[in-house]
Amino acid sequence: MSQLIECVPNISEGRRPEVVQAIVDAVKRVPGVKWLDQSSDPDHNRSVLTFLGTAEVLKAAVLELYDQVHQHLDMQTHEGGHPRMGAVDVVPFIPISNATMDDCVKLAREVGEAVAAKHGVPVVLYEEAASAAHRKNLADVRKGQYEGMADKLTQPEWKPDFGPAAPHPKLGVSAIGARMALVAYNVYLNTNNLEIAKAIGVAVRGSSGGLAFVKGMGIYTEERDQVQVSMNLVNYKKTPIYRVFELIKIEAARYGVQVVGSEVVGLIPQEALLESAAYYLQIEGYKPDMVLENKIQLVAAEAEPVAK
Amino acid sequence: MSQLIECVPNISEGRRPEVVQAIVDAVKRVPGVKWLDQSSDPDHNRSVLTFLGTAEVLKAAVLELYDQVHQHLDMQTHEGGHPRMGAVDVVPFIPISNATMDDCVKLAREVGEAVAAKHGVPVVLYEEAASAAHRKNLADVRKGQYEGMADKLTQPEWKPDFGPAAPHPKLGVSAIGARMALVAYNVYLNTNNLEIAKAIGVAVRGSSGGLAFVKGMGIYTEERDQVQVSMNLVNYKKTPIYRVFELIKIEAARYGVQVVGSEVVGLIPQEALLESAAYYLQIEGYKPDMVLENKIQLVAAEAEPVAK
Repeated sequence: MSQLIECVPNISEGRRPEVVQAIVDAVKRVPGVKWLDQSSDPDHNRSVLTFLGTAEVLKAAVLELYDQVHQHLDMQTHEGGHPRMGAVDVVPFIPISNATMDDCVKLAREVGEAVAAKHGVPVVLYEEAASAAHRKNLADVRKGQYEGMADKLTQPEWKPDFGPAAPHPKLGVSAIGARMALVAYNVYLNTNNLEIAKAIGVAVRGSSGGLAFVKGMGIYTEERDQVQVSMNLVNYKKTPIYRVFELIKIEAARYGVQVVGSEVVGLIPQEALLESAAYYLQIEGYKPDMVLENKIQLVAAEAEPVAK
Repeated sequence: MSQLIECVPNISEGRRPEVVQAIVDAVKRVPGVKWLDQSSDPDHNRSVLTFLGTAEVLKAAVLELYDQVHQHLDMQTHEGGHPRMGAVDVVPFIPISNATMDDCVKLAREVGEAVAAKHGVPVVLYEEAASAAHRKNLADVRKGQYEGMADKLTQPEWKPDFGPAAPHPKLGVSAIGARMALVAYNVYLNTNNLEIAKAIGVAVRGSSGGLAFVKGMGIYTEERDQVQVSMNLVNYKKTPIYRVFELIKIEAARYGVQVVGSEVVGLIPQEALLESAAYYLQIEGYKPDMVLENKIQLVAAEAEPVAK
């Protein structure tokens, strides 16, 4: 099995499908790219792209992505409900198979250096690739958003890892990093009161007293005239998805509000869902190898010598 | 990818681990057998073995299984909480990959003919392999159990498909068939009142007014001094596992009894659990290809031409 790294760039365009498609098509044409998913949100005015490849393939793919985005997007006119600081807002690399976190950190540095050199865009490395502890958390890196970056980047503790200490007018600033797979998970409430969603976001997220590996905020969605608690579950193994969902129900009860439904943005690792099924069905002694497909894979892996 | 069929024999021995192990070891030694799982229940006095192979491999493996069982088991002294009519009580074949249901029906016939010829054991084909509609349902085939088979097999509508119209003294009668993957699922209650578990079994199973693709009954487990609703979910796509679990909770409430937990016997197809996770987490528009691993497999399958 060859090396497989996942790349999930978030770009600041979710309202012009033809533009998103042009960018997606160009990235898909890069040889070796295995395309997984694309998902656009008009309220966020943001798209999430997901693809796989070796380190070499992904470096070429992200360079192509920047070429395309540079051509089509302009942060000077961007508006949307989701925090953002750049046109290619964030580029995480995630180890999937025959790849370590170190491989992904190395790749993040190489790609950051290359796009800064080519486009003059400032790049801040984040999460496992961060060059200092205070630059690990994406929310801290992005604080101030595009509009605040001219000031922020002049502060020594926010000097970019690559590129100039000033935002690129059209491209803004990019965060490039390495991390474990996360789950982008939104829960809708039967109200359009944004204050309630914000308060629940505060209650469930780790930074303000909630669950350790949850990042969350309240967002109003015009499409449904409902608010949502919009979250990233950054460690679904330690803070499982059912715990987050049930806690939101509990917090919503305080306002006489109910959960309408939830959505997964992009892809979700199967273990995140299986663990929740085991919780709700109260399956005693649940282990992943009770699942037929997992067991078959294990048996197949034992039977065949691993090609490196 | 080569042909893969699953075989899940249920044998009438769950109290002597050394005997079960001797049988398992012999089957494992058959060339080409991919072993998945074994699970013994002392209360049921029954073990469930799960392995994979091509049709040819599985035929050799099941013949070996009968040789071993013939040597070690004797139905004349068998007691246990689970209905049974033979030492190799039931042998289902299940299509997994590059195999059709027709392949499994053909295999069931071949194996049935071979074991009847070698051991003189009567074989009734069941489910998709059944030779008549009234012989499809395993519960109907097994009705009367080992003790009632001498009478039953003399009735024309229960003449075995292979072998003599009289039970083998030690081996009894075997049901051999082909079917979709099922989920063996038990739910424990916080009572030792067997009547309650039996009543709930009647309420949830399709044959008596419950859920269409559920077979179920109440069983007392000495080990826990609790009763369980012991079920086979024979079509987890049309009758999903969460619906069964929630209905049992509802029926239990009538008696002031609660569900303590549940257990999966053997292996469970991942889709059965994923669908339940999507239900409980209220994930809108859930589709299996939202799951990272499924999506990767799809992409890999598209990229590589399928070897037959």
